[in-house]
Amino acid sequence: MSEIMDTDSVELMLDYVDVLQIGARNMQNFSLLKKLSKVDKPLLLKRGIAATFEEWLMAAEYLLSGGNEQVILCERGVRTFSDHSRNTLDLNVVPLVRQVSHLPIIADPSHGVGKRERVRSMSRAAIASGAHGLIVETHTDPSTSYSDADQTIGVDRLRGIIRDVALLAELEDLFEQKSDSAVA
Amino acid sequence: MSEIMDTDSVELMLDYVDVLQIGARNMQNFSLLKKLSKVDKPLLLKRGIAATFEEWLMAAEYLLSGGNEQVILCERGVRTFSDHSRNTLDLNVVPLVRQVSHLPIIADPSHGVGKRERVRSMSRAAIASGAHGLIVETHTDPSTSYSDADQTIGVDRLRGIIRDVALLAELEDLFEQKSDSAVA
Amino acid sequence: MSEIMDTDSVELMLDYVDVLQIGARNMQNFSLLKKLSKVDKPLLLKRGIAATFEEWLMAAEYLLSGGNEQVILCERGVRTFSDHSRNTLDLNVVPLVRQVSHLPIIADPSHGVGKRERVRSMSRAAIASGAHGLIVETHTDPSTSYSDADQTIGVDRLRGIIRDVALLAELEDLFEQKSDSAVA
Amino acid sequence: MSEIMDTDSVELMLDYVDVLQIGARNMQNFSLLKKLSKVDKPLLLKRGIAATFEEWLMAAEYLLSGGNEQVILCERGVRTFSDHSRNTLDLNVVPLVRQVSHLPIIADPSHGVGKRERVRSMSRAAIASGAHGLIVETHTDPSTSYSDADQTIGVDRLRGIIRDVALLAELEDLFEQKSDSAVA
Repeated sequence: MSEIMDTDSVELMLDYVDVLQIGARNMQNFSLLKKLSKVDKPLLLKRGIAATFEEWLMAAEYLLSGGNEQVILCERGVRTFSDHSRNTLDLNVVPLVRQVSHLPIIADPSHGVGKRERVRSMSRAAIASGAHGLIVETHTDPSTSYSDADQTIGVDRLRGIIRDVALLAELEDLFEQKSDSAVA
Repeated sequence: MSEIMDTDSVELMLDYVDVLQIGARNMQNFSLLKKLSKVDKPLLLKRGIAATFEEWLMAAEYLLSGGNEQVILCERGVRTFSDHSRNTLDLNVVPLVRQVSHLPIIADPSHGVGKRERVRSMSRAAIASGAHGLIVETHTDPSTSYSDADQTIGVDRLRGIIRDVALLAELEDLFEQKSDSAVA
Repeated sequence: MSEIMDTDSVELMLDYVDVLQIGARNMQNFSLLKKLSKVDKPLLLKRGIAATFEEWLMAAEYLLSGGNEQVILCERGVRTFSDHSRNTLDLNVVPLVRQVSHLPIIADPSHGVGKRERVRSMSRAAIASGAHGLIVETHTDPSTSYSDADQTIGVDRLRGIIRDVALLAELEDLFEQKSDSAVA
Repeated sequence: MSEIMDTDSVELMLDYVDVLQIGARNMQNFSLLKKLSKVDKPLLLKRGIAATFEEWLMAAEYLLSGGNEQVILCERGVRTFSDHSRNTLDLNVVPLVRQVSHLPIIADPSHGVGKRERVRSMSRAAIASGAHGLIVETHTDPSTSYSDADQTIGVDRLRGIIRDVALLAELEDLFEQKSDSAVA
């Protein structure tokens, strides 16, 4: 998967990547969205840094209305007054997406919390809230990571996350993800 | 447990309640904090609606420095631009509290997300992120609840949350809650 | 004028101060508001750090409903993601107060912007937006100010602000402060 | 002036418009910024809806570094918790731009406050804070305006703003816009 930066590079990337990622800064780059809506590749649509839920789903609608049905939503944290984390990972959207949309929703705890020490806990929280998957920045030697080193984890932590998620996945069928209007 | 509203009612409440709750609006009511720091009851300190992590821990310090060591922190959502939930439950603080403080931390998904349909999912997320407990608004007939009806759940949902939390609790020992500086 | 910190000190202060200031942290300290609503002194009600317009006016209503009619509103900046100023002085409320309320509204550019170099410009902006007055932190030797030194100005800057405000006041009658429904 | 939506339409617009406006959603559309940095037209760079001061100036740097020196900054309001205005016009940036940058800064009170009744007051505030100009949405019949009708003013209000600004401009030389390090 690779982040797409502009309309010109779409064709170039098609031969090499499996999933095209629309970054938070491009969530409302409508000319890019229109072009990608015609592409036969899965699209990962990150939530904009200050996007409302409605704006995010409207951006997904641009992709869907052009014919691309392989759209994945990704919560990656929003910008708030809070300064203890890089962004504020807003997991509150996860059950809402599951309630009102048919689209899969994943979480990016690396950008969301922005601190290596908390990525594992927030990965667990994301899955427990109902997320269908995770995107986690990992590096064989995180301290030498070219970008976002503070939030990049090493292979040992990734192994821990995979193990935690596997444990949670076994509980998944026991949880009721959908709101049940029959239950108050 | 009952929310304490002012210094005058502290004595009155002591004979009747098990835990005194300091509401979000009172987190920096320093005269109240000073009075409660002398009380022999557990104190639940809710995070202010726009309180930074540091301000919140400094408020706890007021309670501790007066001699009351039974302080519990409670994340209950902060105010952001986001309008899909009543507040933005900021679970990102949970692993940070566990990393830097000895105080227990619980979450209030009812105020955090503010919508009955999402309380159960966010309860799971809170526990999975490392919270030591939950405070959940429940009513035998939620639609007739005097206040906060939208976020109040019924007994069936509460039963579901208790079951989910019990399942997650079994995994607790398998999760590593503390940041491990030996692991990158 | 002096900031009132708790209900116990109200009586003590009455003999010494001309105006009682209700600080941002106390805007929703309802037991304090109730007590002050019975006092025969002007009250300056600062907007809470994350208070909506409605919450602010409801707090003023507490004061008015108890019989104190000498209520002054004070915009002092709100907490946002923005990090270039201490708070975000939200002058957008000023014309709204003038439109929907009979209460006078003043601005606190010192807390609002939090930087000495910008207090004078924001003082002008506040008056031009329709504010009835200003509260400006001043010290004969600002760098030795006990608290909030970064935002405290010296006597020369205060003199400049007074001069600017006098110039703007002459234009006041030429400006239309009230919304005129006859004008689109 | 017209808002540029994507890289493909740059050439088309060059023959028809005097100023190219880079909208808030495109402030970090770096491929668009790079292309515009080579164009011989003035560029109006709106602040992104949740852009920090530094991010905004870095976006301007993209334009300047490509050789286009005709860059104008435009504050148009940021997204906060506050719900009494469409956005929160953050005039606190105006004196900061004048302090640290050589670029001209204008304000967009129409998007900033988003309510017709307050555009005139915020126009005055913007100029008084040091803004070099304004961009105001106007329509001969605002209620039939195709977009943003709530914030669009009519010709009478525009005439009032022009009169107010002319009055303020006469005071401009009397105000000290620059921070004076000699004055505490």
